[in-house]
Amino acid sequence: MSDRGRLVVACDDRPGIVAAVSTFLFEAGANIIHSDQHSTALADGEFYLRVEFELPGLADGAEALERHFAPIANRYAMDWRIVVAARRKRLAIFVSREEHCLLELLWQRRSGDLDAEIALVIGNHAELAETVTPWGVPFHHVPVGLDGASKAAAERRQLDLIEGSADVVVLARYMQILSPAFVARWENRIINIHHSFLPAFAGAGPYGQAYGRGVKLIGATAHYVTSELDAGPIIEQDVHRVDHRDTVDDLRRIGRQTERAVLARAVTWHVEDRILVHGNKTIVFS
Amino acid sequence: MSDRGRLVVACDDRPGIVAAVSTFLFEAGANIIHSDQHSTALADGEFYLRVEFELPGLADGAEALERHFAPIANRYAMDWRIVVAARRKRLAIFVSREEHCLLELLWQRRSGDLDAEIALVIGNHAELAETVTPWGVPFHHVPVGLDGASKAAAERRQLDLIEGSADVVVLARYMQILSPAFVARWENRIINIHHSFLPAFAGAGPYGQAYGRGVKLIGATAHYVTSELDAGPIIEQDVHRVDHRDTVDDLRRIGRQTERAVLARAVTWHVEDRILVHGNKTIVFS
Amino acid sequence: MSDRGRLVVACDDRPGIVAAVSTFLFEAGANIIHSDQHSTALADGEFYLRVEFELPGLADGAEALERHFAPIANRYAMDWRIVVAARRKRLAIFVSREEHCLLELLWQRRSGDLDAEIALVIGNHAELAETVTPWGVPFHHVPVGLDGASKAAAERRQLDLIEGSADVVVLARYMQILSPAFVARWENRIINIHHSFLPAFAGAGPYGQAYGRGVKLIGATAHYVTSELDAGPIIEQDVHRVDHRDTVDDLRRIGRQTERAVLARAVTWHVEDRILVHGNKTIVFS
Amino acid sequence: MSDRGRLVVACDDRPGIVAAVSTFLFEAGANIIHSDQHSTALADGEFYLRVEFELPGLADGAEALERHFAPIANRYAMDWRIVVAARRKRLAIFVSREEHCLLELLWQRRSGDLDAEIALVIGNHAELAETVTPWGVPFHHVPVGLDGASKAAAERRQLDLIEGSADVVVLARYMQILSPAFVARWENRIINIHHSFLPAFAGAGPYGQAYGRGVKLIGATAHYVTSELDAGPIIEQDVHRVDHRDTVDDLRRIGRQTERAVLARAVTWHVEDRILVHGNKTIVFS
Repeated sequence: MSDRGRLVVACDDRPGIVAAVSTFLFEAGANIIHSDQHSTALADGEFYLRVEFELPGLADGAEALERHFAPIANRYAMDWRIVVAARRKRLAIFVSREEHCLLELLWQRRSGDLDAEIALVIGNHAELAETVTPWGVPFHHVPVGLDGASKAAAERRQLDLIEGSADVVVLARYMQILSPAFVARWENRIINIHHSFLPAFAGAGPYGQAYGRGVKLIGATAHYVTSELDAGPIIEQDVHRVDHRDTVDDLRRIGRQTERAVLARAVTWHVEDRILVHGNKTIVFS
Repeated sequence: MSDRGRLVVACDDRPGIVAAVSTFLFEAGANIIHSDQHSTALADGEFYLRVEFELPGLADGAEALERHFAPIANRYAMDWRIVVAARRKRLAIFVSREEHCLLELLWQRRSGDLDAEIALVIGNHAELAETVTPWGVPFHHVPVGLDGASKAAAERRQLDLIEGSADVVVLARYMQILSPAFVARWENRIINIHHSFLPAFAGAGPYGQAYGRGVKLIGATAHYVTSELDAGPIIEQDVHRVDHRDTVDDLRRIGRQTERAVLARAVTWHVEDRILVHGNKTIVFS
Repeated sequence: MSDRGRLVVACDDRPGIVAAVSTFLFEAGANIIHSDQHSTALADGEFYLRVEFELPGLADGAEALERHFAPIANRYAMDWRIVVAARRKRLAIFVSREEHCLLELLWQRRSGDLDAEIALVIGNHAELAETVTPWGVPFHHVPVGLDGASKAAAERRQLDLIEGSADVVVLARYMQILSPAFVARWENRIINIHHSFLPAFAGAGPYGQAYGRGVKLIGATAHYVTSELDAGPIIEQDVHRVDHRDTVDDLRRIGRQTERAVLARAVTWHVEDRILVHGNKTIVFS
Repeated sequence: MSDRGRLVVACDDRPGIVAAVSTFLFEAGANIIHSDQHSTALADGEFYLRVEFELPGLADGAEALERHFAPIANRYAMDWRIVVAARRKRLAIFVSREEHCLLELLWQRRSGDLDAEIALVIGNHAELAETVTPWGVPFHHVPVGLDGASKAAAERRQLDLIEGSADVVVLARYMQILSPAFVARWENRIINIHHSFLPAFAGAGPYGQAYGRGVKLIGATAHYVTSELDAGPIIEQDVHRVDHRDTVDDLRRIGRQTERAVLARAVTWHVEDRILVHGNKTIVFS
């Protein structure tokens, strides 16, 4: 496992990129395990590539590999990274009062289904501290006030806690809106779960909205957070059937199952470097 | 089959309605096959009931049965009907240029999966005449102009064709908007298929909208038509998974499968008297 | 909630049963909330009914209600019960080493999605003791040996633990086979989760079997336990898509999500008295 | 579209194959559109690759391209083919009395969703001749008797009809078993739709078997035909939910929708060269 690597590339599409990358990896002694490629258009499109490879000694040799790859990357003006799979990404999970999404991530981490570290949990309420403690994960209570100064202070404290100790922020039913500055700083590294099939029922109270409209399916959407509420690039969505007998409370209960499954899939794909962002959309090499 | 009947009831909820109805049917010699009931609230709610029963001689005795039921109906101020299942509902299918929803209904009619008559097809374009002809169903070309007078004339012709010869209008990808007067006259008897998961992407070009937003599931919604565009009571919805490789054309192609399945289910439930409308929602005893 | 009751009936089908039951409930002052009925055949079939009702004072008056209902039950030779919903059923959960199904039930219990008490957990291995302890539920380690005498002793200990303290046994990935005597004693009260889409891949190692056959969907099946292995009445099933890249380990991982969801639904339906057993099949009033 | 090509490769896995193939295509002037690769094991596995590319002038230059690729193919002992996408595969559809799978293929061909030619339809009964005729497709009635001599004569006539005029045989609810000799001659080019979730309910009457077992989901399976009944490599499967109210006839009706969708997907993948057979399994680059 310590020899497993990932090479992720985004650049303008030009003929020969696959040949250049695969020849480089072959000559470096790597064996390609999976290779996924997508071009957004036949001409003048953008090129996205994810290669998973085995290279004996990768853990120690990753820097040299990067150095050797740099000229190819420069030739095609690539946005790129080489990842050592054994270096697990570290999650900072933000919560409020609901535990189901948090618990799902904790369980999937323990069972090994989620290949990441849960570095810390930050709650704007203190309730979930006792949920988190038995798992041996630090819980930080960072209350968020109503006025701007208090919010700013809370975000400073959150940033202090996560900078350097986390690679991705997961909003696991965190009922606060992050500031544009926070979002910009962690661009494409904050994943939110919204409890509706976006773009239907954005904003507050989506289950109430869904009940009012009389939909026959309720959904959940995991997306990267941008400065516009519930409008960032969608990573994953799913739905569950409901009927006329279901109350708003039933929708909430049914929806919880969908929310936690959808969020867990999105986080898994992120930590395995399977997601590339193109404008306001995602390319998911699942 | 000629002895199979349905009793459908809507009224204010009060204790004793099930007892009154089931005792009536028992004393009339009917055997209850299925019985579905829903109350919208524990107190001060509305009561909805659908009973399917076998009663020897029903085809000839339906009027007498209605006469005998009237006092019970009056006691509870019921909105009700008794339906002889053997008297199939007659469909008027409105189309434009796309054939997939029309073909699905024609085929399900022939296979017996859809227990209805297809009385006629009306197209605002002539293209689908040759699709319809081999099935032995009359096709009427009723062009719809751009100005108000022409639209009104077309609707008069449509109403002439369907009044007395159809029980329900199915908009099978009919790309015209019916006037409020038409809709009011056929209230809760016009079923439309919209090619999105409403309320997301109402209006024109839903697949283009869905592509632009980068959703991971595309949907279709069958609903009763009201005077507000794409806002009537939802009967049925379903979705299909798509990914970053799918173009708008792919969404259209994939969506066609969902559209025709969702519309066929909605029409089946309507002609089997399984749908009750409560405000802007449906109760579906599927 | 303490006024909510359920009447569950099974008997030979005859006209008038719905009328008799609903008239009885009306005269007893109960208000019917939901009513589900199924007859297995038009003639000479069996009749199944589940009625959910509100009756003020039910908690104290249940015995009187039963006494008054007895003559009607006798008239139709009913197999029946009246249940006070507020008296939650008590689960005994049997486990081995895998925790995912157990955790799902513990969590759904805490969130209130599962309306039952978890009375105790019995493991033939000791590993899951620490999983259970933080939830405040007793864990009993009852090792099961390989020889008949040891197995019999273990079952006697299990029966001692559950008789009088549990209403239903849930085999949450319990990797032992119960004796016919145990099964007969708890007939239709033992729910197992099998990790395949039965009847495909009964017996040991279903994910290995599924991998070998190259199926494109893997499933899970919750069923009542009978003396024939994996052959009891099916309560619920679901599937999940897999593809050629998935190894046996991937199938196990993916399957865990299906297993816990399917088992949780089956247990929920059981404790809400929604399941009736007819021969080797179930009627589920979900 | 006439410039679109596909290169499909199977061989023992060795490092450098992707590099060799992509470099070859680059130097030939081709632009890779999609590339899918799968290795069955990290060491000593088999390597499968499908590349879709654009190469101006491919229609006329395909033979030269093949000639130039041959040395690379030889070096890695590849089983390979280069396909000009514009040369559509020709289907021979075998039917008996049920039309739903046949109709689905005819419709999807007309709508353009299925990129293939329907060269001919062969029925062992004459009933579906009138279904086929309006579509302008030749229908051949080839009765199949009960004795061996008659069966052999029928197969000779079928082979006469399809050799040279079809590329793939689709058994669209064809209720006869083909001889091992026929199957061997068209290995991996005969697609059957079985009306169950294989391996459950192989053989005759799967809906009756499913009803008897009380399953909660019914399925359909498309697979390549081998000499062992219903045991060939599975291409695609899907399921549909049923409940205790559904009779065997209901299962047949519901199942028809699943059968035609599953078969259409399998045929689409086959004609787009997306399926590779590895032992008794398929790799589907969908």
